[in-house]
Amino acid sequence: MARRLAVVGGDAAGMSAAAVARRRAPADRLEVVAFERGPFTSYAACGLPYLVADVVPAPEDLVARSPEEHRARGVDVRTDHEVVAVDLSARRLTVVDRSPGVAPRELVEPFDELVIATGATPIRPDLPGVDAHGVHGIQTLSDGIALRRHVDEHRHAAQRAVVVGGGYIGLEMAEALHIRGLAVTIVEMAPQPMSTLDPDMGELVAGAIRRLGIELRTGTAVEGFEADGDGHVRGVVTAEGTIPADLVVLGIGVRPNSALARDAGVPVGRTGGIRTDRRMATPVEGVWAAGDCVETFHRVSRQPVAIALGTHANKQGRVVGTNVTGGRATFGGVIGTAVTKVCDYEIGRTGLNEREAGAAGFEHVAATIEASTRAHYYPGASPIHVKVVAERRSGRLLGAQIIGREGAAKRIDVLAAAVWNEMTVEDFSQLDLGYAPPFSPVWDPTLVAARKAADLL
Amino acid sequence: MARRLAVVGGDAAGMSAAAVARRRAPADRLEVVAFERGPFTSYAACGLPYLVADVVPAPEDLVARSPEEHRARGVDVRTDHEVVAVDLSARRLTVVDRSPGVAPRELVEPFDELVIATGATPIRPDLPGVDAHGVHGIQTLSDGIALRRHVDEHRHAAQRAVVVGGGYIGLEMAEALHIRGLAVTIVEMAPQPMSTLDPDMGELVAGAIRRLGIELRTGTAVEGFEADGDGHVRGVVTAEGTIPADLVVLGIGVRPNSALARDAGVPVGRTGGIRTDRRMATPVEGVWAAGDCVETFHRVSRQPVAIALGTHANKQGRVVGTNVTGGRATFGGVIGTAVTKVCDYEIGRTGLNEREAGAAGFEHVAATIEASTRAHYYPGASPIHVKVVAERRSGRLLGAQIIGREGAAKRIDVLAAAVWNEMTVEDFSQLDLGYAPPFSPVWDPTLVAARKAADLL
Repeated sequence: MARRLAVVGGDAAGMSAAAVARRRAPADRLEVVAFERGPFTSYAACGLPYLVADVVPAPEDLVARSPEEHRARGVDVRTDHEVVAVDLSARRLTVVDRSPGVAPRELVEPFDELVIATGATPIRPDLPGVDAHGVHGIQTLSDGIALRRHVDEHRHAAQRAVVVGGGYIGLEMAEALHIRGLAVTIVEMAPQPMSTLDPDMGELVAGAIRRLGIELRTGTAVEGFEADGDGHVRGVVTAEGTIPADLVVLGIGVRPNSALARDAGVPVGRTGGIRTDRRMATPVEGVWAAGDCVETFHRVSRQPVAIALGTHANKQGRVVGTNVTGGRATFGGVIGTAVTKVCDYEIGRTGLNEREAGAAGFEHVAATIEASTRAHYYPGASPIHVKVVAERRSGRLLGAQIIGREGAAKRIDVLAAAVWNEMTVEDFSQLDLGYAPPFSPVWDPTLVAARKAADLL
Repeated sequence: MARRLAVVGGDAAGMSAAAVARRRAPADRLEVVAFERGPFTSYAACGLPYLVADVVPAPEDLVARSPEEHRARGVDVRTDHEVVAVDLSARRLTVVDRSPGVAPRELVEPFDELVIATGATPIRPDLPGVDAHGVHGIQTLSDGIALRRHVDEHRHAAQRAVVVGGGYIGLEMAEALHIRGLAVTIVEMAPQPMSTLDPDMGELVAGAIRRLGIELRTGTAVEGFEADGDGHVRGVVTAEGTIPADLVVLGIGVRPNSALARDAGVPVGRTGGIRTDRRMATPVEGVWAAGDCVETFHRVSRQPVAIALGTHANKQGRVVGTNVTGGRATFGGVIGTAVTKVCDYEIGRTGLNEREAGAAGFEHVAATIEASTRAHYYPGASPIHVKVVAERRSGRLLGAQIIGREGAAKRIDVLAAAVWNEMTVEDFSQLDLGYAPPFSPVWDPTLVAARKAADLL
């Protein structure tokens, strides 16, 4: 009789695990069932800002593989099925079927192997008025559809939007609403946007945002939300006064959605993510986890981290799908690489910033340079700022940050490869990188930054 | 009394060595003199196609630092001075001053330390008619100015240009002339353009060139040039007939300009380049060399190579300037990274291709994938082809090739960093690269290619 692999969560991580397992094991040996509490599977949550911006026309465009497509490939996908409890000793799940049009019913589903891919939950601050209409959290495709519908329906009125939080999600949502023609204000508690950057680089991001015509209020804590008589949000309350708002987007960040696992007895780390080893196995035999719900390993800080990002989720899902079917695969850990775009501006970072390097116990030096994305004489060259952080004693490259325009952000990749390989800044400055006038000055900006850091050692 | 450092050659390598030495040593300790046979210094030869294309408006735009600017910084630059002989035992140079407006005169110039930066010479085939008017070699800024003037002067006539050679220089010159409105034919002896790529990738380049409306004749050897009664070129003779031409550009490649060094007794390697160690010292005490005239070390094939490229020239010049003034610097060698652009198409390569891997004794596997530069749902995504070559036994990444459109070529850098660090394709496929929908699919194309190669091991 076939063993049964149950996947909890239909996001990229879960469905990637399911698809890889299905491909590797014959159907008469392994049954693969996936429970997703919403109506969609395998969608790109990172694409939601572009759906709201109408850069992506339809919600279906964000779906890499629909439930029907998964079923056609032999994965028994149950949408609108929420797993509410896991019994590890009895090897069974309690599932509530919330299929539309019928009364919810509770099911018991057995499993032999379990993959937990419950994703992340947006942080929803416990503030007065947070439940007003028009205060949107953005995590699921349904959230994105709702926000987009709101913007569509009010597109003929002058709309004022407030985005709470100036991190990646906040900036991308601010861009989306700005593109849609709303007057946008970002409210950020910290003194700078993008707290994953150092203050000097964050300051450059702040300037870029403001030049786009987006209002940015840093060092400003949100104290609550005001609503009108119909319960619709009308303002965001801060210590410096109330900011009028017809629409609010919460972009404060996400936390691992690990409650189900924790309640079942699967260990959760201090990041809030489910603990996993490099095989993406939890400490419980036969229980695996992947995606935004897990805690993984930072190769530079040597600390556990929980980073919600589709690229990790996909890699981890593939690792689980391989291992759960008797293969051998490991997830290599993360180094915190991230890229984002706000209209014309591009931002990239990898490894540790100065604050993180200090916290991880590295005595470090840092160098920042301004250069050009192309040969100075080639049209379309634009300024690019590159910062590198290196360990003082060894010269080891610990991290890097980039801000620029077109063609700037993905230059972080070569620095990410260098951080991954523990190169020194001296060695990095010697790298044989692609050079031609349309692509780079004769000294690539990343090499110049590394050389400057090497000179400080 | 000050020692005297003489630099032969005013290109990027020589002047970079001179400038760094000048900066590091006080003037009363070291005199720095540089002899350049042409009128310009520190110009970007790699920018010449863009000058011809009128993408760069003026020749001066290509000059990073003029003779006057060098002099203002304490480097005694002598333009229009050709070094014709080096006497290593007497430590002196024979120099011919060809300053315009006066009769040439011969000078004897002493030196304590010598830097040879004589660059490269375009290969000029010994074929009938090669000296006809309108047959242009492209190496110096003066060459570029002459070709551009030719195109300018004939811009109202329907001009037919033939570019001999389908490598980097040939393609870039073909693009330039195509942009200027000439009807362009590329004649290439090999079965494919871009012999630094494998045939499958070369075939993609061939298709791209032809889609641009540039005629490409591969497998076609040039046998000579026909001229009219005025001695002006009228056609390029091949075995398949004569191709009409009002203008011919020789883009066959360059060879190290090492005759002066060889005649003086400085050892030249089998590549034709001056032999150097990692300090860019020649085997002769107190004689250094840098730039397109040298032979350097390929980190993957472990073989000496001569690669004419501004990025190496600048790095090497800096190394010489440091070492000649008592510092310690080494040039890390090369891995053959190169990028180029032909109108909308971008090409990148690094490390060894399949043929080179075989020649270097590596048993290898290769994987080619087609992917997209952005998330499939994000506007502006375009196809990108990535090929990786890996050692069969170890999985070590030996090289990579990329063809695509905007944003494709510089993705070679992350692969270059991986080749440099001797990563395996398995490790590479785990790399934490920048991901966001405007920049990459959730699996970066380079990761997909590496994973496919890993699956072949």
